[in-house]
Amino acid sequence: MLKFPAPMQKLIRELTKLPTIGEKSAIRLAYHMLVDNPKLCTTLAEALENAESSIGLCRECFFLSEEELCPVCLESNRDEAVLCVVEKPMDMIAIERMGEYRGKYHVLHGVWAPLRGQSTEDLKLKELLERIEKGSVEEVIIATSATVEGDATALYVARLLEELGVRTSRLAQGISKGAELEFTDDVTLSRALAGRTAFSGVSK
Amino acid sequence: MLKFPAPMQKLIRELTKLPTIGEKSAIRLAYHMLVDNPKLCTTLAEALENAESSIGLCRECFFLSEEELCPVCLESNRDEAVLCVVEKPMDMIAIERMGEYRGKYHVLHGVWAPLRGQSTEDLKLKELLERIEKGSVEEVIIATSATVEGDATALYVARLLEELGVRTSRLAQGISKGAELEFTDDVTLSRALAGRTAFSGVSK
Repeated sequence: MLKFPAPMQKLIRELTKLPTIGEKSAIRLAYHMLVDNPKLCTTLAEALENAESSIGLCRECFFLSEEELCPVCLESNRDEAVLCVVEKPMDMIAIERMGEYRGKYHVLHGVWAPLRGQSTEDLKLKELLERIEKGSVEEVIIATSATVEGDATALYVARLLEELGVRTSRLAQGISKGAELEFTDDVTLSRALAGRTAFSGVSK
Repeated sequence: MLKFPAPMQKLIRELTKLPTIGEKSAIRLAYHMLVDNPKLCTTLAEALENAESSIGLCRECFFLSEEELCPVCLESNRDEAVLCVVEKPMDMIAIERMGEYRGKYHVLHGVWAPLRGQSTEDLKLKELLERIEKGSVEEVIIATSATVEGDATALYVARLLEELGVRTSRLAQGISKGAELEFTDDVTLSRALAGRTAFSGVSK
């Protein structure tokens, strides 16, 4: 049976190791790179090697970094008493983009997802406890996603921290800005009701 | 604003040059390779460089090949009088998988798709005409896809070949094996009706 040349088959196999890339997508990507845009083979290979050799994790918060410490950990005016725990570096970028948080971060690099084979051992939890045991942290904001796995992870982390004498909190869950009540799902509505906030100064 | 380290940004930019990969997918892929599976950076880079340096196009049919000629063009018992014109190497593999075709191939590497900026100049048409002018080809089967662009390309190729004295044909279009008439779209039904075949030996 006719097959692609061996080096292309090898490239296709490597591409299918990427998340969300199946065999058909891998064939399409490999064909594009080999025939339509051969320069991309070289520039992508260089970018991969360069990124792999120069990027590690910040030794304090585990954000992606070329240096020992990431830009946030290097900032001198951050509030050392507040620590925000996130799943992924992308979440840390989202919170920084909002521009209102002035504390520090801790990236877990995953969630507790036993069904996908990801246990709590795979998360940067030991490192989180070590940071808190050093004593300067007073409050930990657990900013995992509002998914089932994010909820489970948040609860797990909160229990771990219970004995360390720090306050723990979670990002509020409720109705997104701009959403109509009519089209809001039941779980979100239930969370919004449970977490309702008082109008201060109206009721006496 | 917090950003990813420069080598990761570069990697993300390269990944977005791939078809169907947007910025969010590129970030997810880059993060996966840098944190979850750093070995993949190296093996994928190697596979890219190796494929790029060793794979070219068969000088006769333009299938992907490590050698001057691809395995099909090297086979001595192929019928030189029949040429099957396909869009992509993947189509040639599909026809070979069926196992009933014993002629030769010609890969166009694309379709005539002016809306996507792909003109007939980008296709291996000059090379097709040169092959036919050599004289051994008697029939050309145009096996482009049954899409609007595939139809336009087939018509264009058939007109080009008109003056060269070869027979041209197209793959039949009709109802797929296993499809129910009730759920078959109008265009397919219309093509199936127009291309209806007589029961030989029944009507007299």
